[in-house]
Amino acid sequence: MDLKATEANINGVIESFFNLAPPLRNNADISAKLENFIKRNEMNSGNGGARRIVCVTSGGTTVPLEQRCVRYIDNFSSGHRGATSTEYFVKAGYAVIFLYRRGTFQPFCRSLPDDPLLECFELTDGSNIKVQESYSEAVKRAIAEHHSAVNKGFLLKLPFTTIFEYLQMLRMIAMSTSKLGPKAMFYLAAAVSDFYVPWQSMAEHKIQSASGPLNMQLAQVPKMLPVLRQEWAPTAFLISFKLETDSKILLKKAAGALEKYRMNMVVANELLTRKEEVVVVTSSENIRVSRDKNVGVDDVEDPLIQLLVERHSIHINTNSSSSDL
Amino acid sequence: MDLKATEANINGVIESFFNLAPPLRNNADISAKLENFIKRNEMNSGNGGARRIVCVTSGGTTVPLEQRCVRYIDNFSSGHRGATSTEYFVKAGYAVIFLYRRGTFQPFCRSLPDDPLLECFELTDGSNIKVQESYSEAVKRAIAEHHSAVNKGFLLKLPFTTIFEYLQMLRMIAMSTSKLGPKAMFYLAAAVSDFYVPWQSMAEHKIQSASGPLNMQLAQVPKMLPVLRQEWAPTAFLISFKLETDSKILLKKAAGALEKYRMNMVVANELLTRKEEVVVVTSSENIRVSRDKNVGVDDVEDPLIQLLVERHSIHINTNSSSSDL
Repeated sequence: MDLKATEANINGVIESFFNLAPPLRNNADISAKLENFIKRNEMNSGNGGARRIVCVTSGGTTVPLEQRCVRYIDNFSSGHRGATSTEYFVKAGYAVIFLYRRGTFQPFCRSLPDDPLLECFELTDGSNIKVQESYSEAVKRAIAEHHSAVNKGFLLKLPFTTIFEYLQMLRMIAMSTSKLGPKAMFYLAAAVSDFYVPWQSMAEHKIQSASGPLNMQLAQVPKMLPVLRQEWAPTAFLISFKLETDSKILLKKAAGALEKYRMNMVVANELLTRKEEVVVVTSSENIRVSRDKNVGVDDVEDPLIQLLVERHSIHINTNSSSSDL
Repeated sequence: MDLKATEANINGVIESFFNLAPPLRNNADISAKLENFIKRNEMNSGNGGARRIVCVTSGGTTVPLEQRCVRYIDNFSSGHRGATSTEYFVKAGYAVIFLYRRGTFQPFCRSLPDDPLLECFELTDGSNIKVQESYSEAVKRAIAEHHSAVNKGFLLKLPFTTIFEYLQMLRMIAMSTSKLGPKAMFYLAAAVSDFYVPWQSMAEHKIQSASGPLNMQLAQVPKMLPVLRQEWAPTAFLISFKLETDSKILLKKAAGALEKYRMNMVVANELLTRKEEVVVVTSSENIRVSRDKNVGVDDVEDPLIQLLVERHSIHINTNSSSSDL
């Protein structure tokens, strides 16, 4: 009875969060893109069944402090993990819904400079555009692989900025992919705000600076992972991330999240070493995954995605009724 | 006496702000670039004297909430105003130091989509890179004009992220251009944080979210405009910006800033109409400047920069000793 009461309470808090959030502006457009993408991949797989779909979330969400937004709190995330992982998921034959923060790293473009147009190109004497020799291969690869993934229907990119947009889009994706059951994966690498200012209690106009120090009280963003697990995508393969700067508490917090939110795996990473190694925490073991330093340009995401794909296969076999196979 | 005491107090606050700020990592590199740029433009002008230099600041500053930064407060600014103005300043014969927030709009690239590499280019069958027809002119113009401005020494781009970086770089620029006297202009379009968490009182590790709502007390960032005017660039032509979402208080606040900080002009703009019109507030008049709607793609920055250049000429004539002319 107590558990049910708690669940009802959680659902109430989340329902009220969504009801009070500013509505998504391009709701119909996103919905149509999603439906189209999923439909295409239902028929896309070589072996008859629907292709596996993973939703990769990437980059940080923002929390507006004013309704006509001038100031906001942001969560740092370059989006490198999400963009890199997307490449390896596509390579492994997944269809990827890349839910990313505007302006963060894009798949297939990691090895390019910040501003590729101005840094990689030059004009020839005949005023044609030319790629500079040193960037030639990287630019070709970026354009070719990106366009190929999008055109073949293996990559759908959906951008967000605020926590309100992110959570509404995540819900839409979870609900649209729920018919895939265990074949859907969620790889939740985005850095999601923990605190926010409820829209109703937000200052309408810009906060004035003349009146001394600023005291702010921020409310906790309701935890979405339990709802994702229980309501939106009950049989999907769910992977969340835990980032800490303090290694002492990292694994404990990851194991806590695994149990509390009933994730299938939690990827634990520390801010300073996150490109070198991560620890995948499951209910039975902690698996350390490291970048292969013997290979020139290997990414930690290469062995990480291999591991997840294997475990996802087991999850699909365990959770599918025999008629699905 | 009272005024002097206040000034001493302001200087003390600012000195302590700089002493406690995390030091600029690439200090020597920025310093060398600045010196080189200014030297080049001392000999660059057609008419014998030094070329006029304007420092355009653009985009918003961030305020870290944790020392190993995961969360921060950001000030919204696309950098559109600064990037556009830079183009018109270059056209008017100025050398521009573009002090911009990483990831914001860049001069000569405004008419391109968010991600030009992936949206404007395609591979041909022979796997060469080709600009899509519809973007061809915009891409050529961006690359040609940008490279021309940089190569001729008319444009120096310096990126920042945090308020600490921004203010330290602004001070360096002001001090290096001070030998230009009234020929230096500061066009302060960046959205600078009003509140911050002093580095010393900042959480070292990530703030934990488990413990209920978050109360934050933010200190005011010391006002730099008085120091810029009094200490760093006493005879430069100084233009600050006032952005409000509430039109009722806008002009009053702009006039207040003009007087209090002894700016030469304050550009007042309202969030919703800022691309259509601005009001330039001076000690004697309020000048409304609007985009020419009869011209296809005119920018409000076109007449705005024309006005500023004229007023800057008067400022130079008024403030130069006869030997400088």
